[in-house]
Amino acid sequence: MAMNQMSLSAFLFADANYNRVGWRHPDAVADAGLRFERWVEFTRILEAAKFDMLFIADAVSAPGVDDHETFCRTAWIAGFEPLTLLSALSQVTKRLGLAGTVSTTWTEPYNTARMLASLDRLTNGRAGWNLVTSRNPDDALNFSKERHVEHGERYAMAEEFLDICRGLWDSFDDDAFLLDKESGQFVDPEKLHILNHRGKHFQVKGPLNVPRPVQGHPVVIQAGMSEPAREMAARGADCVFCALPDMDTAKQFYADVKGRMSKFGRDPDTLRILPGVTVYVARTQAEAEAKFDLLLSKTSVDYAIHQLGATLGMDFSGHSPDDPVPPLKPNAGYVDPEALFHDVRAQNLTLGQWALRFTASKSHFTLVGTPEKVADAMEAWFRGGASDGFNLLPPHVPGSIQDFAELVVPELQKRGIFRKDYEGRTLREHLGLNRRGDRSTRAEPAYAAS
Amino acid sequence: MAMNQMSLSAFLFADANYNRVGWRHPDAVADAGLRFERWVEFTRILEAAKFDMLFIADAVSAPGVDDHETFCRTAWIAGFEPLTLLSALSQVTKRLGLAGTVSTTWTEPYNTARMLASLDRLTNGRAGWNLVTSRNPDDALNFSKERHVEHGERYAMAEEFLDICRGLWDSFDDDAFLLDKESGQFVDPEKLHILNHRGKHFQVKGPLNVPRPVQGHPVVIQAGMSEPAREMAARGADCVFCALPDMDTAKQFYADVKGRMSKFGRDPDTLRILPGVTVYVARTQAEAEAKFDLLLSKTSVDYAIHQLGATLGMDFSGHSPDDPVPPLKPNAGYVDPEALFHDVRAQNLTLGQWALRFTASKSHFTLVGTPEKVADAMEAWFRGGASDGFNLLPPHVPGSIQDFAELVVPELQKRGIFRKDYEGRTLREHLGLNRRGDRSTRAEPAYAAS
Repeated sequence: MAMNQMSLSAFLFADANYNRVGWRHPDAVADAGLRFERWVEFTRILEAAKFDMLFIADAVSAPGVDDHETFCRTAWIAGFEPLTLLSALSQVTKRLGLAGTVSTTWTEPYNTARMLASLDRLTNGRAGWNLVTSRNPDDALNFSKERHVEHGERYAMAEEFLDICRGLWDSFDDDAFLLDKESGQFVDPEKLHILNHRGKHFQVKGPLNVPRPVQGHPVVIQAGMSEPAREMAARGADCVFCALPDMDTAKQFYADVKGRMSKFGRDPDTLRILPGVTVYVARTQAEAEAKFDLLLSKTSVDYAIHQLGATLGMDFSGHSPDDPVPPLKPNAGYVDPEALFHDVRAQNLTLGQWALRFTASKSHFTLVGTPEKVADAMEAWFRGGASDGFNLLPPHVPGSIQDFAELVVPELQKRGIFRKDYEGRTLREHLGLNRRGDRSTRAEPAYAAS
Repeated sequence: MAMNQMSLSAFLFADANYNRVGWRHPDAVADAGLRFERWVEFTRILEAAKFDMLFIADAVSAPGVDDHETFCRTAWIAGFEPLTLLSALSQVTKRLGLAGTVSTTWTEPYNTARMLASLDRLTNGRAGWNLVTSRNPDDALNFSKERHVEHGERYAMAEEFLDICRGLWDSFDDDAFLLDKESGQFVDPEKLHILNHRGKHFQVKGPLNVPRPVQGHPVVIQAGMSEPAREMAARGADCVFCALPDMDTAKQFYADVKGRMSKFGRDPDTLRILPGVTVYVARTQAEAEAKFDLLLSKTSVDYAIHQLGATLGMDFSGHSPDDPVPPLKPNAGYVDPEALFHDVRAQNLTLGQWALRFTASKSHFTLVGTPEKVADAMEAWFRGGASDGFNLLPPHVPGSIQDFAELVVPELQKRGIFRKDYEGRTLREHLGLNRRGDRSTRAEPAYAAS
């Protein structure tokens, strides 16, 4: 893909709602995440609009499990497990990339490398992996641990985990499979590589018992904005998801991460940075604003303040919605409170007003307007060194996906910054990335699309 | 399902070959396991023949990794990972049960319970789980362990693991999801159950973030014939896979396991015992024997002796193929060498002859003959208290599956001991088992087939 084209991903949690209010929208399918036929519908809209990928975020514990009030009001509580869901979706899609979150904190590298290699074969090269370290302390309680793994240690584990997966994916050369019935030689021993990894956190012998992925390696996505997350992205990721509230912050982040790549010997074009964007679009500005306001009206302000505090790791329970926003504490990397607060101060919002807006968009760039206005802003970011495309966060489904596909995508296509049809077959090809880690002389993998 | 009907499962490794020689058969698709379109073909044959389920066995290390000679001659080395493969197959099948192996030794109960619950929803209630403890010491080397977990300890872990999964599957009552947009109540807090498991091997808080499986609980399959495996089957399994070389051994095993169920308060009819069977069938006895001999002729006798030794945990390298079979040692439960050896002595086989036959059938019941002869033997076992059906081990694919579907299934149907069409929708219904662990008063699960 030409680098003058942006990439588009659609970001859904397993419950098919990005925020926790969307399910209450009058047009929303409240339990969309629980119904496979709805996922089929979403992928059909995305594939018709030529999106690069569907991305399914994940968590390995229920949100606010000790707080029934929160827990039982959110659709985020239950859905499909991403890798099984994506595997099923592989059979109802043809071109759309299919990416999911797997935590390196609570899985084993051998199992995860295997499932992702398998998914990459099932999709004929359309698999992506959002490699996360789990930041939720409640996760540990589902995995026989009293205490959570500390932030720096989690990233060190994640780096080693990724190295192991890459090594396991290279167990067999692409042309290792001889399948010689006469001699009885199934595999060429010269083209089999035993990993024998012995590291600080893991010892993994290998080889993987899955052939090399169709893409060489599945697309590796890094989400997270802390210092170790930026280093990891620059060193090893193919794609970055990030939460950036405005273009200035986005330009700084983009330049910083791309700037770190040279020390790892990488060309900045081999990494695609896709900030999240929440879009409320309609043919007129007034209609778009009505869509935004409708969603805000569905949100209880107390609930929104609770959610904001939970995300920032702060307790706002002593504050009233009409209070000014109290001083913010830095937290562990997912969002930068100061960058958010900049916007809040500029608009002179109360705690309640900010919390409602936060619940509607999280800490992501938010656009409310006509197709032209939305496309203008996206084009400005894309051409202005703030992004290589976007990760769309639909406020409710399927309406927000449909609106974007029908109104914004044609506008981007008209401007020549988004494809009118798929040019490649694999997710790497959609993203303009080469097949990863080739070691064989064969142009085509032995078990590519058939 | 009436209990006067047998159940049929088809047993394939992820490489789509039960034994390690089948890929060399002239008609075999050597790399069938690596090609999804072949798996689609297998499931279509099995579904047309009204099989209860496809079962995909698994291993989490390559066989004989330190022995390149063995390793590179076996198709068993590489394939899809079962849960991702079964999830993809969910979309190309309608009625066939889809079961896979997941080891309780090398996975976390939260992750495994989640994936199986997700698979059960994706299949609309057709998921099965072959719960195994990993017996291969090489597995440990892929999971950051120097030494394997000891046999008794593995079973204690497995029992606790299964209890946790059952608890997690019951996190939400079937009618827990209110989806009330007006009040904002997504889940009824009264119908949510926090597990808070604190056991010897695991601590898992819960709840699971997947709704209750369509079957209540997926079908739980136990394979293994040791003392703890029999206890575990009697206590908690819905189905047993086993390797029994002759009807006398099978009757003893069947009576023993069913006899253990009353102490757990279980009706013997709630457990289906399905011994493995390898079938070489043709319209004439001579043709069937030619099929068997052809496969034996593809097997190197040295390779076969090596494989036999590896399975029994014995070293036969100092022996010639013409030697008598040396005294056998008991091993850790997967096969009973004495039961096998009984057959060997009766036929006065040399080590080489036995090894060739073993490679062709493993330790399973083997039938070579016409459809009538094969059906006679299967009917005798089924009516004679030796089995509730069979787990078919196709020597090569797709030929052996096709032969069985075309020649044996109609013969079983004619005798009234196998269904002519599916009566139920779920795997539990195929097996004649009730929905498991109902706690709600609703007849239908909230998220059943739609």
